[in-house]
Amino acid sequence: MRTRFHQELDDLKDKLLRMGGLAEQAIERAVEAYRRRDSSLCNKVLEGERTINLMEREIDELALDLLAMQQPMAIDLRFIVAVVKINADLERVGDQAVNIAQRVMELTTLPEADLNIDIPRTAEIASTMVRTALESFIYARADVAETVLKMDNSLDQVNAEAHRSMIRTMKESPQLVPQALNTLLISRNLERVGDHATNIAEDVIFWVRGADVRHMFGDKAATSGD
Amino acid sequence: MRTRFHQELDDLKDKLLRMGGLAEQAIERAVEAYRRRDSSLCNKVLEGERTINLMEREIDELALDLLAMQQPMAIDLRFIVAVVKINADLERVGDQAVNIAQRVMELTTLPEADLNIDIPRTAEIASTMVRTALESFIYARADVAETVLKMDNSLDQVNAEAHRSMIRTMKESPQLVPQALNTLLISRNLERVGDHATNIAEDVIFWVRGADVRHMFGDKAATSGD
Repeated sequence: MRTRFHQELDDLKDKLLRMGGLAEQAIERAVEAYRRRDSSLCNKVLEGERTINLMEREIDELALDLLAMQQPMAIDLRFIVAVVKINADLERVGDQAVNIAQRVMELTTLPEADLNIDIPRTAEIASTMVRTALESFIYARADVAETVLKMDNSLDQVNAEAHRSMIRTMKESPQLVPQALNTLLISRNLERVGDHATNIAEDVIFWVRGADVRHMFGDKAATSGD
Repeated sequence: MRTRFHQELDDLKDKLLRMGGLAEQAIERAVEAYRRRDSSLCNKVLEGERTINLMEREIDELALDLLAMQQPMAIDLRFIVAVVKINADLERVGDQAVNIAQRVMELTTLPEADLNIDIPRTAEIASTMVRTALESFIYARADVAETVLKMDNSLDQVNAEAHRSMIRTMKESPQLVPQALNTLLISRNLERVGDHATNIAEDVIFWVRGADVRHMFGDKAATSGD
């Protein structure tokens, strides 16, 4: 029984990583659509949302089954609850990809504008954050999770720059307002992707630290565990 | 034992409702700060974030304790997992209040502008959504939760209007770009509050429907439960 339980825990982890892969792919596609002004690629992102939503429910159900299966140990409980939380964040990374795709579709209807804003670079930071957060989860490494929190500061900075730059553009070239605003909103969507990665990292820290405390003292971690 | 377990479940529900109250209050304060251009009220919102974050951890720990306490029944498991998810959304409603407060602080440094955008009305819809989502949770009413999903459409519509209106303003009066952009971003923050309310409503539906299916058939709801 115990073995089957642990196999299913591994299965849960695999599914969550696949979910992470889908969410990352959605963001990559949306950003590629932006670079190429490609509305057919936007459509792919929109179509992919359903798969991500179904996968979220599947993972939640598996988590519930595992919680019901037998009396899981504290460390496994924390793991399963972390999965449920991370799962919700990954689904919302997918939502951000959809939002970006919608902005790109609007941009493709407007004359192309040369704006002082580096979306691919912003996307690179955001994607790295998601990937690193998932890595910290796979290897149960709170220290890796903490690097994600630091990356969030650079992302916020890049976004603050984009914000200032687009305000300048809109003031100086009012005819570019629609393009500048849509591009700024894409930048902000990527900032939200980073926020979700940060949430995931915090959940990993909560899980690992809580587990450590329980392990070391053989007692409940209580709120001081984080 | 069973009785103590159910008392603790009630305690968990009470705590979550208090968390909901804090999140709602933060949004109300941030919007009031916008109406009065009051940066001291913004500070109160920023200070309140810590309390909300602590409360989130406390609720998560209580949920974990309940999961560990004894073999909860399927219906209780679903309830506890729903609480964990709703808890995360409420914390992020609090984050939105902080974002709004930051925008308001920037607005107070700029000359006041008469903009064609109705933030209090947008806030009213968003707050009603949060309140209704929590009500649907208290009374375990999937039908009430579904009204939240409908309200989200009106909120999206109000936001799309705000978007068009602010693009017009920025094109026609470039000197108002900073005010119009900050106000538009507040409107979008409120849209995100509505998104969180929608997530909560979906979790309630997932919980109630799943519970119903399990109840009726005495079997696992599986993925068809939602």
